[in-house]
Amino acid sequence: MPITPDQQAEIDALRSQPRQTLRAVSEGMEAHLYKAIPVLDHGFVRVIDYMGDDAAICQAARVSYGKGTKSVQNDEGLIRYLMRHWHSTPFEMCEVKLHVKLPVFVARQWIRHRTANVNEYSARYSILDREFYIPEASQLAAQSVVNNQGRGAALTPAEAARVLDILKGDAARTYDHYEEMISETSPEGEAKQGLARELARMNLPANIYTQWYWKVDLHNLFHFLRLRADAHAQYEIRVYAEAICKVVADWVPAAYGAFEDYRMGGAVLSAKGLDCLRRMLKGEVVTQETSGMSKGEWREFEGVIDR
Amino acid sequence: MPITPDQQAEIDALRSQPRQTLRAVSEGMEAHLYKAIPVLDHGFVRVIDYMGDDAAICQAARVSYGKGTKSVQNDEGLIRYLMRHWHSTPFEMCEVKLHVKLPVFVARQWIRHRTANVNEYSARYSILDREFYIPEASQLAAQSVVNNQGRGAALTPAEAARVLDILKGDAARTYDHYEEMISETSPEGEAKQGLARELARMNLPANIYTQWYWKVDLHNLFHFLRLRADAHAQYEIRVYAEAICKVVADWVPAAYGAFEDYRMGGAVLSAKGLDCLRRMLKGEVVTQETSGMSKGEWREFEGVIDR
Amino acid sequence: MPITPDQQAEIDALRSQPRQTLRAVSEGMEAHLYKAIPVLDHGFVRVIDYMGDDAAICQAARVSYGKGTKSVQNDEGLIRYLMRHWHSTPFEMCEVKLHVKLPVFVARQWIRHRTANVNEYSARYSILDREFYIPEASQLAAQSVVNNQGRGAALTPAEAARVLDILKGDAARTYDHYEEMISETSPEGEAKQGLARELARMNLPANIYTQWYWKVDLHNLFHFLRLRADAHAQYEIRVYAEAICKVVADWVPAAYGAFEDYRMGGAVLSAKGLDCLRRMLKGEVVTQETSGMSKGEWREFEGVIDR
Amino acid sequence: MPITPDQQAEIDALRSQPRQTLRAVSEGMEAHLYKAIPVLDHGFVRVIDYMGDDAAICQAARVSYGKGTKSVQNDEGLIRYLMRHWHSTPFEMCEVKLHVKLPVFVARQWIRHRTANVNEYSARYSILDREFYIPEASQLAAQSVVNNQGRGAALTPAEAARVLDILKGDAARTYDHYEEMISETSPEGEAKQGLARELARMNLPANIYTQWYWKVDLHNLFHFLRLRADAHAQYEIRVYAEAICKVVADWVPAAYGAFEDYRMGGAVLSAKGLDCLRRMLKGEVVTQETSGMSKGEWREFEGVIDR
Repeated sequence: MPITPDQQAEIDALRSQPRQTLRAVSEGMEAHLYKAIPVLDHGFVRVIDYMGDDAAICQAARVSYGKGTKSVQNDEGLIRYLMRHWHSTPFEMCEVKLHVKLPVFVARQWIRHRTANVNEYSARYSILDREFYIPEASQLAAQSVVNNQGRGAALTPAEAARVLDILKGDAARTYDHYEEMISETSPEGEAKQGLARELARMNLPANIYTQWYWKVDLHNLFHFLRLRADAHAQYEIRVYAEAICKVVADWVPAAYGAFEDYRMGGAVLSAKGLDCLRRMLKGEVVTQETSGMSKGEWREFEGVIDR
Repeated sequence: MPITPDQQAEIDALRSQPRQTLRAVSEGMEAHLYKAIPVLDHGFVRVIDYMGDDAAICQAARVSYGKGTKSVQNDEGLIRYLMRHWHSTPFEMCEVKLHVKLPVFVARQWIRHRTANVNEYSARYSILDREFYIPEASQLAAQSVVNNQGRGAALTPAEAARVLDILKGDAARTYDHYEEMISETSPEGEAKQGLARELARMNLPANIYTQWYWKVDLHNLFHFLRLRADAHAQYEIRVYAEAICKVVADWVPAAYGAFEDYRMGGAVLSAKGLDCLRRMLKGEVVTQETSGMSKGEWREFEGVIDR
Repeated sequence: MPITPDQQAEIDALRSQPRQTLRAVSEGMEAHLYKAIPVLDHGFVRVIDYMGDDAAICQAARVSYGKGTKSVQNDEGLIRYLMRHWHSTPFEMCEVKLHVKLPVFVARQWIRHRTANVNEYSARYSILDREFYIPEASQLAAQSVVNNQGRGAALTPAEAARVLDILKGDAARTYDHYEEMISETSPEGEAKQGLARELARMNLPANIYTQWYWKVDLHNLFHFLRLRADAHAQYEIRVYAEAICKVVADWVPAAYGAFEDYRMGGAVLSAKGLDCLRRMLKGEVVTQETSGMSKGEWREFEGVIDR
Repeated sequence: MPITPDQQAEIDALRSQPRQTLRAVSEGMEAHLYKAIPVLDHGFVRVIDYMGDDAAICQAARVSYGKGTKSVQNDEGLIRYLMRHWHSTPFEMCEVKLHVKLPVFVARQWIRHRTANVNEYSARYSILDREFYIPEASQLAAQSVVNNQGRGAALTPAEAARVLDILKGDAARTYDHYEEMISETSPEGEAKQGLARELARMNLPANIYTQWYWKVDLHNLFHFLRLRADAHAQYEIRVYAEAICKVVADWVPAAYGAFEDYRMGGAVLSAKGLDCLRRMLKGEVVTQETSGMSKGEWREFEGVIDR
């Protein structure tokens, strides 16, 4: 339960003071502002600010194409055209600022997406809270045997119980030690110096929660979502991406629809794959041996056309 | 006079429909929205959208410093601290989208600032208007003799008149030819093929106007303004930067004040410069010969401490 | 013929002094270094420096996957896997620096690719040469009637001749005027002030040549090549991209092969496209009406599976 | 002692095979290639590849300034001019690729510098080694009382001993548990499923070592070094920055000299600071009260002119 009564009161206060603006307004996004969408056991995503809407994407596109646009297209058709033809700059004209609370090991994956602005909670200045991600037992799985990264079969209940014991025990102990190190009172109640926070934090494991403001344009957000809402992404980051997907669907419904069709639900075929496909459509029986592909490529190709 | 009655009507319409929002609102920026600020003879800058205000900068900074901030500082003090200590990420949390109409040779300088999003009018799709930047006679100056880039003494009236004749004449002729090439009717009134726009545009000189949407965060905008509102910048881009400075001063007054004090009005001293300064403050008479600096460096150093 | 005897002598001198290095060396790239590959009538591309080779891509990938890589793959297989799965960071570990001479209207398209480093010849400091791109008559085509950007049917010989007359005449006249404006002697032989270069340049048309150093990593170069070596790109930038493709094929043959198969020769299918495809492979006759696609999408889909 | 005999043998092998190249070669950098410079207790920095040298910076600058450069300057003078006037693009024409082994909490600070390419060891694919940063006792200090981030007085020997006990104990225990969780054999020697690596890693504290390839251009590297080799940077990242400073000094001695003088050893004065300075140079006694500065600003100003 990540939202405290104090936080809820703050959210309510922020939401109780509408003001007038002449800017583009997305009603779908106004409904989200400041509210926290729970993710994992202590995390959340919430929208702090946004710029633009579906109409703003079209407006920017029409600056580029000006009077050269032959036929008047409706906004949705134009947005689908832009997405299909990789015209990314109009999507860059929308921007969103999110407040995210997330485990450190998720933050480390997330930050690899460099084209975004970040303000993270500083453990040099401030003291981290005692909040750790402890997976649900159902999420505990063995190392995959077909995929070098990723999860395979579920652990047995006994195996899962042992893992949870370890995670909970180490989280509690390392945090106790963190507090002891930075404390200015010894366990015996005597005055002592507190270790600098920038040093003490090194004892904390990667499932502790951090938080940040993350600001990104819609084009780069779609790129993030394509990779992180994908079935191959680690579950713990995927749930954040999925929460954001729902927000984006409310913010820019036409752009999100095009994204779902052309990116999330689409697939890239190689030159070899296209060649096989054309042969198959003409009635030829193509096998891995006659495809020119490696076994791995063929398996993935079959996944694309059969699933 | 860059604004036509049609454009003014469009601006009035956009400004006549305030809507409610829960986002941060900058009243100073609301007053600017959609209005065109004239720049040069046919150019303008106008604000299309914005995100954030002074308070949003502080809010982002407080995420980072959290409970570690010892004393409650007022927003202005915090913003000055951030600017002084090069903490750039909170300023990245504000964003602005401008519509700019500008000569192509100015656009070519401007685009070197890469950390921004751009949608430019496409001369492949569309036909450029017959609008050229023709400098005022008072702006016509000779190549500087002390600075390899830049302007020196004013031209004589006769020299200036000849330059304006050339610029006007070539603009008119090349645009006539552009129109002739793309036209589907010959000068004699017969049907002919129109040359592809993507080819015909190559005949147009660099003082023709283009336009774009330009979106940038406040940190990168400050960097742009520091370089382009500087006295060494070419006049024709400086007037755009100065127009934007006024907009930013209304948008985020505290951040703009800190920017003026620490960036625009400040100066960087080298290790050698600091050494000279300390010696001078102790009463030593330091000359170029005893400074360890080259003549050019010394001249610039004198400019910093004397002006 | 873009290379003067002086330039050739400089190239020969640079190529005559091999030195020893412990870095990764690509023999294919060593053969290109400093040589100018002619493009258009006065342009060129030449390699000034490079970093990395196919093995460096694999080495970087193996840092990431470390001991987790189950089976030892050969380099080519690993590179194909990385390309297929959009693992872009290992390709970012290679870098190339090119010297390019190109018309200004091509430079304006090129510079939109922001993730690169650029040093362009400055017309504020220096005087541009009298070199203009004049298309071959065979390249002169009408505005396309099916595509809002792009070229359609060839011009007639008479139409083409008129266009070439215009382009040549305006190039000569505007350059004469440029020279006159910056000159410190009047046409009558008397002393006069020369207009500042930063102003005089505005009279020059977009087919004048400029030049720059352009440095980019291999991942971003592939992105550039996919868009600019594509059949839909304007001919005048496509020929530069094609020249660079040949250089890259010699530099990193395995990576270039994977790029050709998965990017240049591949295609993206939408969710709707995949659905149609699966139905067709099962024997169903699918038409635009039963596809769920718009006419434009269907036409493009047919292009992908039939061509 | 971070280098194993196997690693040393690999370095020796890489250094034993010089090859010929026509590229720019920096002898200072050739001497560094592949060798590991030890940092902290188990970390290192080593140069894997580089592009360019001092001459390459000048060559790129001369492309921009071309024939407009009035006087022939020597390379060092030109480089100092570029640095002094914030002409950053020529410095972007040099690139370096480093292999760095570093604690995770240092990596988290480092990665905030976004304009670089990174390939990090993946704990989803691979198993992390049992290597933790344990500070030297002399590095253990209390939270600063004058600076919200940073260190103050040294801990007492007893306090330090307790901290080291905690850090060592928790590192050993959490790593034992990490191994147990991923193991396919139970402590009792029976077969069990191994927890997926992507989950097990969450138990590891922030002082465990990771490693990456980090590639950056010289301009952005200087920006990194200015912030991270600064006295206010955390010691554990500063020692990496200092090690890199020495490498850069050998690679591009002229550029590094200019960087030391204008960036590392220089200081920025605000408009208010410059005003005070000019008054002081004219003999006025200026105090905080008459300076127009806040107490914090005045203290920093005094530091700049007195130190």
